[in-house]
Formats: sequence, structure tokens, C-alpha cells
Amino acid sequence: MDPFMQAAIEEAQKGLAEGGIPIGSVIVHDGKIIGRGHNRRVQEGSAIKHGEMDAFENAGRQPARVYREATLYTTLSPCAMCSGAILLYGIRKIIVGEHETFMGEEELLKSRGVEVDVLHDPVCVGLMQQFIADKPELWNEDIGE
Amino acid sequence: MDPFMQAAIEEAQKGLAEGGIPIGSVIVHDGKIIGRGHNRRVQEGSAIKHGEMDAFENAGRQPARVYREATLYTTLSPCAMCSGAILLYGIRKIIVGEHETFMGEEELLKSRGVEVDVLHDPVCVGLMQQFIADKPELWNEDIGE
Repeated sequence: MDPFMQAAIEEAQKGLAEGGIPIGSVIVHDGKIIGRGHNRRVQEGSAIKHGEMDAFENAGRQPARVYREATLYTTLSPCAMCSGAILLYGIRKIIVGEHETFMGEEELLKSRGVEVDVLHDPVCVGLMQQFIADKPELWNEDIGE
Repeated sequence: MDPFMQAAIEEAQKGLAEGGIPIGSVIVHDGKIIGRGHNRRVQEGSAIKHGEMDAFENAGRQPARVYREATLYTTLSPCAMCSGAILLYGIRKIIVGEHETFMGEEELLKSRGVEVDVLHDPVCVGLMQQFIADKPELWNEDIGE
């Protein structure tokens, strides 16, 4: 397992242990994690802290060059908001754990030149399948449905 | 002046007074402001709290129906991240103070069925023109450039 996807999965599992939605993300620059995070809808009552957004917030104010050279890892295909953040900061490559349980804006990202690698990871799929079965209302809220 | 755009401008002015980037936003549902905010890059060292995002965070966890019926006001044309949040929550109408100093993802929003009204407001234009002239590096950082 790619150690950075492993770190994103650990973030997702941390979120689940906190009673939250199990989606995690890390941002990697120059072989090091510069930002990590997980969905905090439940924990902070947040409408904007999806896993990827939390990783951006944790990475914080970086020179444009750093974000442009970074790779974002996320356990789940990024929604419109997180995809928009990826475009804003000019991230050129993302590694997605799975898009089986939710298909985000991968086509938009690819149309803007972002490389999107999907791992179809069974651990990521399992986390979301179990969560969606357990708390469908919470999941729907998180994706605006 | 529309009182809701006036409220968004007051948020932008509050941000400026705090030493921040003068962009403000309010989210309106059923004739009432349910969320308001301004850019907090400087104030909180935030990479994700643009004005619109701060307004979403302030509005917080709302039923999907509420966001879908809401109108978002922003003093400046929304970037890719904020436009993505608008799409995630199914906001159907946005009122934009100006897009003269920065053109956001209005075409993407319109292609997804969002109504985009641009007011070409001179107060909004003036706030950004002055700010960009005073602190170009900060502005470039905010838009990932």
C-alpha cells in the first residue's frame, strides 16, 4: 500500500472513531505530507470541512509553487467543493482511494488537466459502504442531498 | 442598494479593517440571512476561508432543502473552490457584486443551471482595485497565483 494513501485511510479511520464521516486526505509535496485532515461535519458542525478541505486548511498558506507541485490523496472521489479547491490551487495530480460509492467531479478535473488516479481500494470502499448503510441521512447531508 | 448585497459589502469592509482581503458574502433563505462571512486568509492563516466559504461555515449544517432554496450574495465573482461549494449544496441563484477585477467560474455555474446576476457595483470594484494595488502578493496567493 502506498504510504500516503495509508495515511489518508488513517485519517478516515480517525474520523470514524470520532463519530464522523470516514473520509481522509493528505497533501504531499517533495515526498513529505504538508497537510492532513478528515471530514469534520459531525465533530465541528462544519459545512465546509470535507476531508480534502481539512487537509488544505491544515497545510495552510503555502506559496503557489508548493501547491502546484503537490499531489493530493483522498480516500473518496472529490465532490464539487473539494474539486474546486484542487483547481483553485492548481494541484496537478490526485490519487483517489475509490469512486465506487460516490463519483465526484473527476471529469471536470480531467478536463482542466488534472491527472486523476483511482486505486479502487477495498479498504476505502468498505469504510464508505458500511458508513452509508449505518447513517444514510448524514451521508446525504454531506453531499447536499 | 439591495440590503443583502449591502450586508456582504459590510462583511468585506470588516475584513479590510482586520487587515484582511476585502471580500464578503451572505447566504439568504426565506428573506433572512442564515450565514455571513468574509475572507479570513490573513486573520486565521486560512487556505479555505474565502468569503463565500466563511458564509457557508457560518450557516453550518442545514437541511439540503434550505441550501437549495437559498440565494448566495458575494462581493466578488466566486473562484473555483467557492463555485464548487455552491454546486455541492445546490444553490440555484447567486448575486455577484462585480467580476471586473476577477472573473471566477461563472460559466461553469451557468452551465450547471445556476442563475448568476452580476451587479457591476462600484463600491465592490473599488474595494478590490484598491486592495490589489496595495497588496498584490496577498491577492495572488488568495487565487493560487
